[in-house]
Amino acid sequence: MDFRIEKDTLGPVEVPAAAYYGAQTARAVANFPISGLRPHPALVWATLVIKKSAARANMATGRLPAELGGVIVRAADEALAGGFAADFVVDPFQAGAGTSHNMNVNEVLANRANELLGGQRGDNAPVHPNDHVNMAQSTNDVFPTAMRLAALRLADGLVAALDGLIAALRRKGEEFDRVLKSGRTHLQDAVPIRLGQEFEAYAVAIGRNLAGIEQALPALRELGIGGTAVGTGLNAERRYIELVVAELAGETGLPLRGAANLIETTQNMDPFVALSSALKGVAVNLIRIANDLRLLASGPRTGLNEITLPALQPGSSIMPGKVNPVLAEVTDMVAFQVLGADTTITLAAQAGQLELNVMMPVIACNILFALEILQNTIRKLTDSCIAGITANEARCARYLDESVGLVTVLAPYIGYAAAAEVAKESMRTGRSVREIIVARELLSAEALGRILDPYPLTSPGVPGRKE
Amino acid sequence: MDFRIEKDTLGPVEVPAAAYYGAQTARAVANFPISGLRPHPALVWATLVIKKSAARANMATGRLPAELGGVIVRAADEALAGGFAADFVVDPFQAGAGTSHNMNVNEVLANRANELLGGQRGDNAPVHPNDHVNMAQSTNDVFPTAMRLAALRLADGLVAALDGLIAALRRKGEEFDRVLKSGRTHLQDAVPIRLGQEFEAYAVAIGRNLAGIEQALPALRELGIGGTAVGTGLNAERRYIELVVAELAGETGLPLRGAANLIETTQNMDPFVALSSALKGVAVNLIRIANDLRLLASGPRTGLNEITLPALQPGSSIMPGKVNPVLAEVTDMVAFQVLGADTTITLAAQAGQLELNVMMPVIACNILFALEILQNTIRKLTDSCIAGITANEARCARYLDESVGLVTVLAPYIGYAAAAEVAKESMRTGRSVREIIVARELLSAEALGRILDPYPLTSPGVPGRKE
Amino acid sequence: MDFRIEKDTLGPVEVPAAAYYGAQTARAVANFPISGLRPHPALVWATLVIKKSAARANMATGRLPAELGGVIVRAADEALAGGFAADFVVDPFQAGAGTSHNMNVNEVLANRANELLGGQRGDNAPVHPNDHVNMAQSTNDVFPTAMRLAALRLADGLVAALDGLIAALRRKGEEFDRVLKSGRTHLQDAVPIRLGQEFEAYAVAIGRNLAGIEQALPALRELGIGGTAVGTGLNAERRYIELVVAELAGETGLPLRGAANLIETTQNMDPFVALSSALKGVAVNLIRIANDLRLLASGPRTGLNEITLPALQPGSSIMPGKVNPVLAEVTDMVAFQVLGADTTITLAAQAGQLELNVMMPVIACNILFALEILQNTIRKLTDSCIAGITANEARCARYLDESVGLVTVLAPYIGYAAAAEVAKESMRTGRSVREIIVARELLSAEALGRILDPYPLTSPGVPGRKE
Amino acid sequence: MDFRIEKDTLGPVEVPAAAYYGAQTARAVANFPISGLRPHPALVWATLVIKKSAARANMATGRLPAELGGVIVRAADEALAGGFAADFVVDPFQAGAGTSHNMNVNEVLANRANELLGGQRGDNAPVHPNDHVNMAQSTNDVFPTAMRLAALRLADGLVAALDGLIAALRRKGEEFDRVLKSGRTHLQDAVPIRLGQEFEAYAVAIGRNLAGIEQALPALRELGIGGTAVGTGLNAERRYIELVVAELAGETGLPLRGAANLIETTQNMDPFVALSSALKGVAVNLIRIANDLRLLASGPRTGLNEITLPALQPGSSIMPGKVNPVLAEVTDMVAFQVLGADTTITLAAQAGQLELNVMMPVIACNILFALEILQNTIRKLTDSCIAGITANEARCARYLDESVGLVTVLAPYIGYAAAAEVAKESMRTGRSVREIIVARELLSAEALGRILDPYPLTSPGVPGRKE
Repeated sequence: MDFRIEKDTLGPVEVPAAAYYGAQTARAVANFPISGLRPHPALVWATLVIKKSAARANMATGRLPAELGGVIVRAADEALAGGFAADFVVDPFQAGAGTSHNMNVNEVLANRANELLGGQRGDNAPVHPNDHVNMAQSTNDVFPTAMRLAALRLADGLVAALDGLIAALRRKGEEFDRVLKSGRTHLQDAVPIRLGQEFEAYAVAIGRNLAGIEQALPALRELGIGGTAVGTGLNAERRYIELVVAELAGETGLPLRGAANLIETTQNMDPFVALSSALKGVAVNLIRIANDLRLLASGPRTGLNEITLPALQPGSSIMPGKVNPVLAEVTDMVAFQVLGADTTITLAAQAGQLELNVMMPVIACNILFALEILQNTIRKLTDSCIAGITANEARCARYLDESVGLVTVLAPYIGYAAAAEVAKESMRTGRSVREIIVARELLSAEALGRILDPYPLTSPGVPGRKE
Repeated sequence: MDFRIEKDTLGPVEVPAAAYYGAQTARAVANFPISGLRPHPALVWATLVIKKSAARANMATGRLPAELGGVIVRAADEALAGGFAADFVVDPFQAGAGTSHNMNVNEVLANRANELLGGQRGDNAPVHPNDHVNMAQSTNDVFPTAMRLAALRLADGLVAALDGLIAALRRKGEEFDRVLKSGRTHLQDAVPIRLGQEFEAYAVAIGRNLAGIEQALPALRELGIGGTAVGTGLNAERRYIELVVAELAGETGLPLRGAANLIETTQNMDPFVALSSALKGVAVNLIRIANDLRLLASGPRTGLNEITLPALQPGSSIMPGKVNPVLAEVTDMVAFQVLGADTTITLAAQAGQLELNVMMPVIACNILFALEILQNTIRKLTDSCIAGITANEARCARYLDESVGLVTVLAPYIGYAAAAEVAKESMRTGRSVREIIVARELLSAEALGRILDPYPLTSPGVPGRKE
Repeated sequence: MDFRIEKDTLGPVEVPAAAYYGAQTARAVANFPISGLRPHPALVWATLVIKKSAARANMATGRLPAELGGVIVRAADEALAGGFAADFVVDPFQAGAGTSHNMNVNEVLANRANELLGGQRGDNAPVHPNDHVNMAQSTNDVFPTAMRLAALRLADGLVAALDGLIAALRRKGEEFDRVLKSGRTHLQDAVPIRLGQEFEAYAVAIGRNLAGIEQALPALRELGIGGTAVGTGLNAERRYIELVVAELAGETGLPLRGAANLIETTQNMDPFVALSSALKGVAVNLIRIANDLRLLASGPRTGLNEITLPALQPGSSIMPGKVNPVLAEVTDMVAFQVLGADTTITLAAQAGQLELNVMMPVIACNILFALEILQNTIRKLTDSCIAGITANEARCARYLDESVGLVTVLAPYIGYAAAAEVAKESMRTGRSVREIIVARELLSAEALGRILDPYPLTSPGVPGRKE
Repeated sequence: MDFRIEKDTLGPVEVPAAAYYGAQTARAVANFPISGLRPHPALVWATLVIKKSAARANMATGRLPAELGGVIVRAADEALAGGFAADFVVDPFQAGAGTSHNMNVNEVLANRANELLGGQRGDNAPVHPNDHVNMAQSTNDVFPTAMRLAALRLADGLVAALDGLIAALRRKGEEFDRVLKSGRTHLQDAVPIRLGQEFEAYAVAIGRNLAGIEQALPALRELGIGGTAVGTGLNAERRYIELVVAELAGETGLPLRGAANLIETTQNMDPFVALSSALKGVAVNLIRIANDLRLLASGPRTGLNEITLPALQPGSSIMPGKVNPVLAEVTDMVAFQVLGADTTITLAAQAGQLELNVMMPVIACNILFALEILQNTIRKLTDSCIAGITANEARCARYLDESVGLVTVLAPYIGYAAAAEVAKESMRTGRSVREIIVARELLSAEALGRILDPYPLTSPGVPGRKE
């Protein structure tokens, strides 16, 4: 490989001749051979948007000459259009606070800007990565702002995915509204419920998760950009700060605003903990729902078999004909990953010290990954699993009829203790609750019919009694 | 010990003769000798309030005879006033869904009610624990409702404690507003900041945590009471459901309302995950702040020593005269406990199945404990630590003067690379940045004075330049 | 309440007149009104044993006069026999490193020792809590040593409980060795297995957990006692260090030894992380087993109903006759608590700084609680649940016969693809695999009988083929 | 893109014409567009080794014709040499239990084997992916075995990395053995210690972590291969089971053996929890050490500045000359990731049901990633940070001299209370402990010199007193 020699404040560095990045990126590549991963595309996008917006704001304040600012903006636009993708190379596990990531972007843009002005990669002049591309900025305000923008962008996709899931669940709620079955509590026979009620309840729960995500977003829309090194705004003019936020809002279409206290924004990562917590809420309910689907679809012969999930792929390399609930399973696994990410984010967020939390890169890496895999999974679960679920009505009806839980409806008539005797007899003899009631003449045939009319049993009220 | 023999649906049970509780509680005591702990008082309070409210609602619908309902209400009032405290005995680690806790309260109230009517403990008549005290209820709607009420009650105290902390931090922010010091990022010399700005930023961060808690409360104010066994409301009349919620709101003074979907409320614990997440947000920022205090107060001779915390107790059994930051330390420990509780709550919340999450008792136990220790700690930290912090201004001033980070203010004038040379010379020679600038004649004395005027360095702007 | 005034290095303090504890404990009570809990009895025991052993060692080196050492030992013996239980009062959430706990014990013993010599509580002479009871000690070596002793003591009980569980599972493995059933993977029909094999497998898994606990104990048997304040052993003679370890070994009956590097022992809490991790291993497998039991016992009418768990208490306040798997459920909840404790312990362990980890008290509190509730739960699960499980053989046999998974045995004869066709026909038509094979004449009746002989299907080999 | 149409048991599927993989892989690619990641190379390696070993074992038992087995082995060898790398395409977040991954490897090898026999991709004959490549196997024994082999391989690298770290720490321990400094507990002045003692203690702690990893490996060396679908070994002959384990041991050079109970091995993931726990132990101590390095190297002007870390890259995009402890920081971040992975693994491990834990893929993904990033980080930390640390002896000496903790050495001479008075005077007046002792004539000049001779203060014993 061909190299050019660049110099930074620590001395000379070999940089691949073809690279748009420069000395500090090359050092970072050497210093952080950790995971082999590249930065999340949304983080690169967000950092480029910041660089472009800062250049425009700095030109507007008159601090950045238009001939330099113009080519920085052009370079950023090229990168935003997909250029230089191979040049964003710093491992997500890197220098504290993301200095290397920020410098990677600064260097790529400076080199490209100088090239646009007729110069060579490595010149660092007339456009300098620190003095011009990073003008009025510090990693300490750029990186958390980039994290926010990237998270907000991915959150949009997650919100849409959740909307789709809710709609699909609700449709199943309607489709299965007349499918009567036995409820189960503690996995034991309980009182009647309708399959549609179960799906409608899932939709409501996911709706609350969606609201939880939306509650977490406003804090992310408050940007610390302009705070520079420690949030005091040293080297960033007040007017620049206003302008750069406006540029960012315009560029991204997001309802962004400058944070009231830039020092605080530089110090604290709890808004990402809150977003991660909202994802945790989603994960917890997804696990519940996925596990219910796996349980209700279990069998077909040796399980509950109340519903059938769409068959997506052969389920076993050894057992022919087996079909597994693969999307429900991957949903569990993705949810576990999201919960693990929450642990990492929490640990990183509590490790801030004084003016800065240097653990930001690992937070960025995990929150963006979680946002992405969650929405991808939800979309797939919605479209290829939930939407195609069918009910096994006969099986549901049989459970309804056989469940010992039916005895509950007798309690208001004969009391808890007497009703328990019926239940025990049913379990001992295998006869249905209905049979025993008739045999024991506990209720007249007419009353029994009225009381055990199944559909009303699934709504509030004492069965057989007018309210 | 004297016993009486009671009978439940599984057969005879020995119950301590003096106990107000009955057979099912006695079984639970035998079945769950796990932790030796008793139920949280707030949970007992909440369950009693529910029993009282349900009795009043059931009387209003005409289902519960006034002569029975009246003594149930009286018994509940006695218990709410502190009676029978020794009779709420079921270990928090108990039967799934909290059946034993619910029956414990049912039995105590039934026995006391019958006693008020002239009967004996153990009679179970005329007032029956299931048929009357538990009328129109199931553990499955009572227990999660009790969890909500108890959590809401304790949350009030936490909100007040956080308000106090914010006010104390803000006062220190004002008190220390003129104390200039060196900022530190990566624990390395950075640019100037004021001690007051640090405390003000803490206040802002905690303010966001407080908002986070308030966001978590509305979902807890939606009650599933009336859903009974699986949320369908079987055996609970619609009018009862409306009435019992109104009674609860009146009894507690909380802005409660009935959930729109009772099935969903019975299934899902994510509102407690959300509350726990909000506590996690508090914990994460408290750790950060406590650790900053420990670091800033470190020394006095071998540490930073920028602030002094009130001396509360001798710090060492072997090192005379040592004083430790004990309240900052206990804050860390309590925060770690809260984060551990969050793990437990998350695990329990994802373990729901079909119509019910039977893991509720361990969620109740952890969320209530977390709410309680967090507010107790915050109050103590506020009053006995934060409020008494003093600044060591001379030390702060010395750091300000010596910090190599000051070189940052030169960059807009001489560029990043040249400024880095100054920094390196300072580190190599031990001379201050100011000295070197003068020696190198990089700036005129006048310009230097203007640029390095410390107070403006802590606000936005390029030092020495009019905006 | 009556008070006496004591003085410590920070000034005068009110101490309840009747208390054996003194000024520093009184300060701690005022400083840490956090949880209302008292120290775990095992921790008090361990600290007392250390004080007694240290006194004996200090007398042996000649540094502690026998007239003082003798009464310290006597006081410790009284406390070990249950005396002064009401005087160990410091909240587990307390001063970093446990200084307050250590001083609580120092003060109780000093006051009692002086009383034995005819003095008054509060005299602090001739026996002084620091100079004599704490002689050659620091909280920094006493507290982690006490944590180790307490954990080792409780670990013994856990090991015994696990032994009992393994034996009970193994007995069920034998009892159910001939109960054929269908295996399930992904909760879908799979190939045959015997119920006894499932229980035997549980026993093996728990056996590995037990080994994991035993692997964690040796590091806890290496004591840092004698390291004093920072592990260098300042103020502790080499001979004392040897003697005190020998005393502790004698007093506790545990195979203890002095750590090779006392500085390291003072700094690091990872041996407790390792023990907690071993408990996590137990918890993970217990959850699995408990959930399997809940699933296998589900129903009776609407679930799998392959086994029946002993009925321990009525299962519902509203549904008469319901019986829930309460011990399996509480096992899950306790396991979740143990996993939450692991989070807390991990957070605390990573928070050590330089010579000390001040977060020890919260580690102590959680590891001891986890050890205790885990063993109590396992004992109860073993004796009152596992031991009484019965198999529903007819149900198991029906599943065996109906399972579509049986088709797997055909694959070596007719290939995966053709076997899958049989499976699909079975699922479509509802006919059993056996019927279809006969109908399609895929195998002769003789071969079919030989191949589908169920018992051999549950051992290695190609069915029907001699190996 | 060109496609070929393949057929599996669910119908026709489009497969890229050039792909060596087949229908089931194509389905998996469509079903799991989750993370965009590919399987970890170590997992592919392990699965290939299993396929090769199984083919050889099946040929040895006579079940697999040599002409088919031979080409399977050849195909596997080609893949092991790096062939078909682009064909292992299934997302790590995939079908429960890893069926898709297993089938991906089966299909690639079958297609290549048929090609070697002159056939076309997609023929599935004469070599069939299920009947021949997967012969006597199920995903349920292949996947966990592959996880074990992959983890063992990466663990070797981690062990080597830890050995290197320990050696480097120990060398620093020797190098700094005479560098006296003040210890700090609670970040407050404590008694003397030597810088070398701190590094030696780090080495000891990491040594214990290394032992912890080695304790976790034996359980991973017990393979469930041969258990097939549910661990009973259906369709796998006993001789095959012995042979395949021997082949695997030979192929990998690892001390592998067949598990005594194959059912248990199929059910349980706790051996991976144990390995993850061992990594957690490493992570916890690495965080501690990294944080100590960051603290000790803090400043240079506004921090402790006792040591200097090698300068690896410019530390700030805005603050010229700043150098940050980047490798210590990335160590923290990687450790947080490892702790997050532990959460995910724990959740997945507890989610097993009956005969199988379908959550294996997410466990594989996280444990392998954790093993890899941990060792990469440790190597870099060792070579580029620890090895180049230098001590700032003058600064250390100054802290030693000024520390108030020195007063501790007086306590055996003048008692705790009187020594505390000296400490308080020192803190109030700013004079050193030594000065005050002389001024107060508490000790003779000779005694003072003898007692405060610093080096002996860092070893056991009462200073100035012969033992």
